[in-house]
Parts: sequence; structure tokens; C-alpha cells
Amino acid sequence: MRLSILIYDGFTTLDAVGGYEILSRLPGMETEFVAATPGVIAADTRALGLLAWKGFDEVRSTDILYVPGGPGGFAMEKDERFLAKLRDLDATSTWTFGVCNGVGILGAAGLLKGRTAACNWFYQKRLAAHGATFSPARYHRDGKYVTTAGVSAGIDGALYLASLIAGEAVAKALQLGIEYYPAPPFPEKAPLEAPKEIYALIEGFEKSEGREQLAQRPVFEA
Amino acid sequence: MRLSILIYDGFTTLDAVGGYEILSRLPGMETEFVAATPGVIAADTRALGLLAWKGFDEVRSTDILYVPGGPGGFAMEKDERFLAKLRDLDATSTWTFGVCNGVGILGAAGLLKGRTAACNWFYQKRLAAHGATFSPARYHRDGKYVTTAGVSAGIDGALYLASLIAGEAVAKALQLGIEYYPAPPFPEKAPLEAPKEIYALIEGFEKSEGREQLAQRPVFEA
Repeated sequence: MRLSILIYDGFTTLDAVGGYEILSRLPGMETEFVAATPGVIAADTRALGLLAWKGFDEVRSTDILYVPGGPGGFAMEKDERFLAKLRDLDATSTWTFGVCNGVGILGAAGLLKGRTAACNWFYQKRLAAHGATFSPARYHRDGKYVTTAGVSAGIDGALYLASLIAGEAVAKALQLGIEYYPAPPFPEKAPLEAPKEIYALIEGFEKSEGREQLAQRPVFEA
Repeated sequence: MRLSILIYDGFTTLDAVGGYEILSRLPGMETEFVAATPGVIAADTRALGLLAWKGFDEVRSTDILYVPGGPGGFAMEKDERFLAKLRDLDATSTWTFGVCNGVGILGAAGLLKGRTAACNWFYQKRLAAHGATFSPARYHRDGKYVTTAGVSAGIDGALYLASLIAGEAVAKALQLGIEYYPAPPFPEKAPLEAPKEIYALIEGFEKSEGREQLAQRPVFEA
């Protein structure tokens, strides 16, 4: 079974790595990191690069199509080559997996019309423009589409997807293997539960992660 | 403030990226990925490479020294150049952060003598050989040393460290920014709570991640 994780300039690394750490360990899985052009792809922080060791031209089909989010994802919603590749691979996939605003890119490709999807908290109002209905769940399945809330939710969603693919015993072993019995230091469970001043900080964090800000940040020298 | 994340052949990506996704976003943080020799470093799965864009020679001091674990970490425990670099950087750091069996590498460098530390569930009995006492906590602070349980626990430990560095409001905003209100699909909270057959699966998973197996696995073609 093949897992193809599509990355792009300005993706958020944990969006991609959270689910990768689960799904790539499923028995018999072949995992590949894919970008339009092969090479090192800079993450949103500009302090980290991941190697996309396959280009779009080398990947014609896949079993699991995985699209992470990140501030660079907004540009991908208008990138016709990226969207066409998503449509092509989705036509062959058994599962299509979106994390955070990566779900929005799937939406922009027209893949979520009439479907319900989870996504980043701050993206929820934009889903309707893609003909999709927002689910506030941490992850959600609609047919072959498994979508998740922001960033770290890719871990939870991937564990769920792992159980669908390989059964509960394997998924449980993976959950315990990565010691995912989380104990976050703070009790708030969603941005709206946070005190107002914290909510404002998060909003600022989200805004500062926009693509304009991204463009202004220097990238590591590879 | 500078964050230096040391990676090496066969590290586990989520060990490094979980905490990176938090700490790199602290206001004013400069983050660098460092390896003995700069270049793409292959993770344990051999399906992912991260760019170490600084070599040991370029990094003489740091504020936060961050050491992830992974099956390749066992070789680092005997790698005198790696251990010497840890000792040098630790001598300058304000905080030293270890995840999973990355804590064991800190131990092998002699940095945890007489200290208490958290670490990977399957590493706990080996801590004593480094003169350290195992803590079953998800993360633990002993002086400037913040150590965590396996893989995903780096997220929790980094949020805790973020609160020590930048205060609770910022750490809370980061926790909510990465939507870390986890909902793991399965209820077991530690390997020993798992049914016997699942525990056996995890043990197998840990054993199959040894460095001998690592050496036999083909690496992506960069």
C-alpha cells in the first residue's frame, strides 16, 4: 500500500509528520514525500526543510493521498497544477486524508462538494465556499475522506484511519508505540473555551502565519 | 534566544518536530537544525529526510539544546563526537531538552548523573546505567533539564518548557494554536495498561526499530 504525502512551500510540519508517524508504520506501507518539484521544501517557520524525494511527474497513483495544511496552503488553493494533481491522485486513492487547512485545499480542488469535513478552527467558515459542511469533531470520516482539525489533530485522525486500514490492534499498538496518552499542561479544549486575552493571542498567531508574512521571512540557507 | 535541534541518522521525526512546532514559535526564537555534517538526514523510517542546515562546526553555543530520540539514538550513545558536542552545547545552554531515548543520549554524555528524568517507556531500565533515576511522568524538570516520555510526549514537554520561558499565556496560545486538545481513539494510557496481545505488538514494534534493522532498510533516493 502506498502513502503519498504532498508538501509545498510554507506547509506546517506537524500537520504532515503527525499522521506520517502513524501511517508510515502500518505493515507493508510504502511512504513517499511528494512536491511539484523534488527537493527540500521549506516549512512555514522557514527554519526547517523536508525532502520531497518525488516530484509530481513521478507519482501517477496512490492508495492514501495525504494533504497537510499550513499558511502556504492558501496559495495552493489557487495553484492549478497542485489542484489538478490532487484531483488526479484522488481519483486513484482508497483514502484521502486532509489535516488543518489542508482540508481547504482538498475543498478548492472540488473534492469535498456535498461532504462534511473537519478542519482548522479558524478555517471553518471558509468550508462552505467549497460546498462542504464543517464538523467540529477532532476528525471526521465521510466516505473515503478522513479530515481532521488543526495541526496536532492529524495524529488522532491518522490513528483512526490506521484502525480502518489495519484493524484496532495495530492502531492501538501504534498509539502506544508513540506514547500518545497526552497530558497537555493546560485544560482548555478549544479556542473558544480560552480566556479572551488568550483567544486574542491565538488569533494574532493565526494572522501572523498568513502567506504575506511567510513571504517576508528569510528561509534557512540550504 | 536560540533553539538548536540536533538530528542524526535514524532519529524519529515526531520526537524532533513535536517540540519544534511549539518552541520555534516562541517570540524571538531563532531555530536551527544541526547535524555533525550539514545535509539531509534520514529518519528512522527511511522514507523522510530533514535538512540539517548547520553542521557541528557552525554551532558553538545555544540557549535551548534539543535532542530527539529514535532507533538511531543507540549508536549516538557511543559516538564520541556527538557526545562531546552535547557536552559543549550543554555547558552554554539555559535549557536542555530530551525526548524519548534522546534522554539516553544525554545520559550517555554524562549530563544526567544524579538527576531524575522521564524517557521512552522501553528505555526506563537503562537510565540507571547513566546514573539517572527514571520518572514515569509524561515530562519532568530537574534543574535546567526537561525530559519527556516517548515520541509524542515531546509536545507536552515543550508546552511546559514554553510556559517556563515565555509564561503561561503564550504557552496556552501555542497549545490552542496547534489545536492540542487530543482525543486519542483508544483509552489505554500506558503500554502496561494494554491487553497482553497489544503489549506484545508494541514490544515487537520497538524491537523492529533497532539499529540493525535500520541498517537493512533502504533509504529514499535523495
